[in-house]
Amino acid sequence: MDGTFIRVGKICCQEQWKYLFVNNSINIKRKRMEIKGFKAAAVAAGIRYADRLDLGLIVSEAPVVTAGAFTTNQVKAAPVILDMERLKKGKAQAILVNSGCANACTGETGMQAALAAGSCAASALGIPDEMVQVSSTGVIGEQLNVDAIKKAMPGLVAGLSPDNFEQVAKAIMTTDTVSKTAYRTVVIGEQEVHLMGMAKGAGMIMPNMATMLAFVLTDAQISFPQLHGALIKGVERTFNRITIDGDTSTNDMILIMANGAAGNPWIDEESTDNQEIFQTTLMDLLKDLALQIVADGEGATKFITIRVCGAREEQDGVQIARTVANSNLVKTAFFGEDANWGRIIAAMGRSGVRIYPERVDISFGDVMIVKEGLGQGKTAEREATAILKEKNIVVTIDLKDGVECAEVYTCDFSIDYVKINADYRS
Amino acid sequence: MDGTFIRVGKICCQEQWKYLFVNNSINIKRKRMEIKGFKAAAVAAGIRYADRLDLGLIVSEAPVVTAGAFTTNQVKAAPVILDMERLKKGKAQAILVNSGCANACTGETGMQAALAAGSCAASALGIPDEMVQVSSTGVIGEQLNVDAIKKAMPGLVAGLSPDNFEQVAKAIMTTDTVSKTAYRTVVIGEQEVHLMGMAKGAGMIMPNMATMLAFVLTDAQISFPQLHGALIKGVERTFNRITIDGDTSTNDMILIMANGAAGNPWIDEESTDNQEIFQTTLMDLLKDLALQIVADGEGATKFITIRVCGAREEQDGVQIARTVANSNLVKTAFFGEDANWGRIIAAMGRSGVRIYPERVDISFGDVMIVKEGLGQGKTAEREATAILKEKNIVVTIDLKDGVECAEVYTCDFSIDYVKINADYRS
Repeated sequence: MDGTFIRVGKICCQEQWKYLFVNNSINIKRKRMEIKGFKAAAVAAGIRYADRLDLGLIVSEAPVVTAGAFTTNQVKAAPVILDMERLKKGKAQAILVNSGCANACTGETGMQAALAAGSCAASALGIPDEMVQVSSTGVIGEQLNVDAIKKAMPGLVAGLSPDNFEQVAKAIMTTDTVSKTAYRTVVIGEQEVHLMGMAKGAGMIMPNMATMLAFVLTDAQISFPQLHGALIKGVERTFNRITIDGDTSTNDMILIMANGAAGNPWIDEESTDNQEIFQTTLMDLLKDLALQIVADGEGATKFITIRVCGAREEQDGVQIARTVANSNLVKTAFFGEDANWGRIIAAMGRSGVRIYPERVDISFGDVMIVKEGLGQGKTAEREATAILKEKNIVVTIDLKDGVECAEVYTCDFSIDYVKINADYRS
Repeated sequence: MDGTFIRVGKICCQEQWKYLFVNNSINIKRKRMEIKGFKAAAVAAGIRYADRLDLGLIVSEAPVVTAGAFTTNQVKAAPVILDMERLKKGKAQAILVNSGCANACTGETGMQAALAAGSCAASALGIPDEMVQVSSTGVIGEQLNVDAIKKAMPGLVAGLSPDNFEQVAKAIMTTDTVSKTAYRTVVIGEQEVHLMGMAKGAGMIMPNMATMLAFVLTDAQISFPQLHGALIKGVERTFNRITIDGDTSTNDMILIMANGAAGNPWIDEESTDNQEIFQTTLMDLLKDLALQIVADGEGATKFITIRVCGAREEQDGVQIARTVANSNLVKTAFFGEDANWGRIIAAMGRSGVRIYPERVDISFGDVMIVKEGLGQGKTAEREATAILKEKNIVVTIDLKDGVECAEVYTCDFSIDYVKINADYRS
C-alpha cells in the first residue's frame, strides 16, 4: 500500500501528529526484502479446510528480543493467555500460527492443545517450548486439531526459508481477500535497519486492539523496554484507530521480534534520537498494515477516514471519531453514497464527549457541508455527493473546542458484510 | 401485541422483575378504546411527500398534568429543546407532531419554525402557545415546512375526534411498516382507569431514550411527581432496553398526559398501593409499545431477547445484554440462523463488565449450547440451530456471579437493513 493512500488536507495539528497525517518517510525504501536471521514457512495442514495454507512458522536463528500486545477482551483465547505468560521474559525464537480455529473458549483442553502445538514446533526446531509463541485465528469454540499440526510439522520445518514470509501472510487469512504485508528500511547510525510486517483482518475488528493478528520482524538492535514501548505507542495510534464492525476479537495479538542483525547503534534508554527514528518507522509500517486491514474490511466498498480536529484532548477526538466510524447508519449512508451528515452529527452527540453543536464544521473531502452546525444547502450537498462516489473518503470534523486532532479509519457497511457474516461458518 | 410475546423460561429473578418477565395483567382488558376528554386528528400536509399522513394533533379538553422524557443525545432537535422548557410546568393541552422532517440541526431558524408551528395550532385551538408540545421526526438538517403546516391546520382541527388516535399513530410513521398502539384498563379504587399509547420506531433506535416518539394518554387522576416518576421508571425498563442499531436519535421523546377524568382516588405521594398499580400498568403498556418497535425494526426478520441472569448488579446485566444485542456479528449470525455462540461470548468479553468466562452458561430457547464456558457439542448445536429458525428467540446468559437479571430486546441484522439505510433519503 502506498504511503499516500490517505489524502492529506490542510490540518491544524500539533507536531506530534505529523506521522498520522503525512507519511514522512525517513530514508524509506519500498523494495521487498527479507530480514537476515529470520526464516518462514507455511503449509496446508487441513486444520479446517483441505488444500488451503493454514499453518505458518516464523523462526529466528537464536532467541531474540520480542514484545507483544494482546486483546483487551476478557475472553482470551488459549494461545493469547499462553503467549502473554511466556513473553514476560521478553524473548522468543519462533511463532507458530494457524487459521481455521481460534482455540478460544476451549477451556483446559484448548490450553493443552496450544501447549502441544507449540511443543511440537519446539521439538522439530530443537528449541525450548517457552521460546515458541503460538497464535490462532478462526471460529471460536472449536477445539484445535493438534494431530493435523503434528502431521504437518516436518514439512513445515523443512520448508523454512528466508523468503517465505509472504506465504505465512497467506496462511493467516480467514475472510481476508488479500494478504497484507509491509516493509520499511531506515538508517540508524550508519546502518540500514529493516522492518517487515504482516497482518490479517477483515472482521471482528475494533480496538483494543484491532489487529486480529500481526507479526513484525526487524534486524534492529534494540533493548526490550524500547521495543515494547515503541510497539504499544505504535499500536495505540494505528491498529487501535481502525474499526470495521465494532467487535473486539478474543484472539487479537501483535508480536514484534528484533534480532539485532543490522548492527546499528543500540536503541536503548540513552539513545533518544535513534529511538524516535525507529518509533516513527515502526508507526509508519503499523499504519500501513492497519489501513490494509480496513481497505479489505468485510464487504467494504469505501475506505473512510474520520478526522476530528479542534478537540480539547486527543482522546476526546478519538472517542468522537470512533463513535461516528462505528455508527451503522453512517456506514450504510456511505455505502449508499448519501451525504447524510445528520447521521454523523447525531452520532457525535451520543459519543459521551461534550460538544458544541453550533460550532461544528463537517467536510467531505474539500467540500464543507456543515458550517457551525448548519447544513450548507443543495449545492454543497451535490458536491459532497460527488465526493462520496470516490473509493477513498476523508470526513473532517472541526469541533472548534481545542487544538488536538485524531483520526479513525473505517469502511462502509455493505450488503456483502451481512452476507459474509450470515454465512461465515456454513 | 399479545402480552405473551416473550417466551417465559425458568428464571431466577427478584420479585421486582416479575413485570419484565411475566405480563402480570392486573385487571387488564385488551379491548380498543378512546379516552374521555381527549381528541385527535391527522392529515396529509405534504411536509415531505404528497398524499401521506404526516401531521397529527392530540388535544385535551383542558390543560392536564403532562410529563415527558427526552433524548440524551447532546444534539437535540428544536422541538425537543422547546418541549423540555415548556414541560417544566408539568402541564400541557395539546401535542402537534409531524413526520418527514426532524427539525434537528436547524439552528435559530428551526427553533422559530417549531415556535411558529406550535403557535399556529394554539391559535386554531384558542389556547396559549405554552400549552402546545411540538414533536418532529424525519430527516435531520432540513428546515421544517411551516407553510404546509399552517395550510393544513384548519383541516386538522376540524378533524378532531375522540376516535382518531390510530390516525395519529399512522401519521408519525417513517420507515415503520406498521403503526404501533397499545391500550390498557386497570381498576384503581373502584374506578376503571384507561391508558392508551402510540409509538414510532424502526431506525436510529438505542437508549437513551430509544423511543423515537411515543405519546401516552390516560384518564388517571395523578399528581405530576407520581406521573413523572412512573414514566421515567417505566421508560428505563422498557424503551431504554431496546436497541435496533445502537444509534440514538436527536428527536426521541415520550409524553404522557393525564386528565383525571376517571375520577379514581388520587394517585399521589400518599397512595403507595395505587401508585404501584398504575406503575405496573403503565410499564406493561410501555413495554408493549417498545417491543412493537423492535418487532418492526428496519429489515428485521427475528425478534431477539437477550436475557442476562446471575449478574451482580442489574446495570451489569443491562450492559452485557446491550453489548451483545448491539454486536453486528451476533445480529448477522441470527439473520443467518447460525448458532455462532462464540460471537456472543466475545461480545460479553468486551462489554466492560467483569465476567468469569469459565462460569458462563448460554441457552438458545431451552437448549443449553454453552455450559461453564464450553460448547456442548454437535447435538446441542443442531438443536439450537432449530430454535434459530423461529421468529422469536430468547437467548439466556447465566453469569453465575449474583442474583440480578436484565433483558434487552433487539432484532437481527439483515440485508434489508443495509438496503433501507443506504436508500433512506433517496
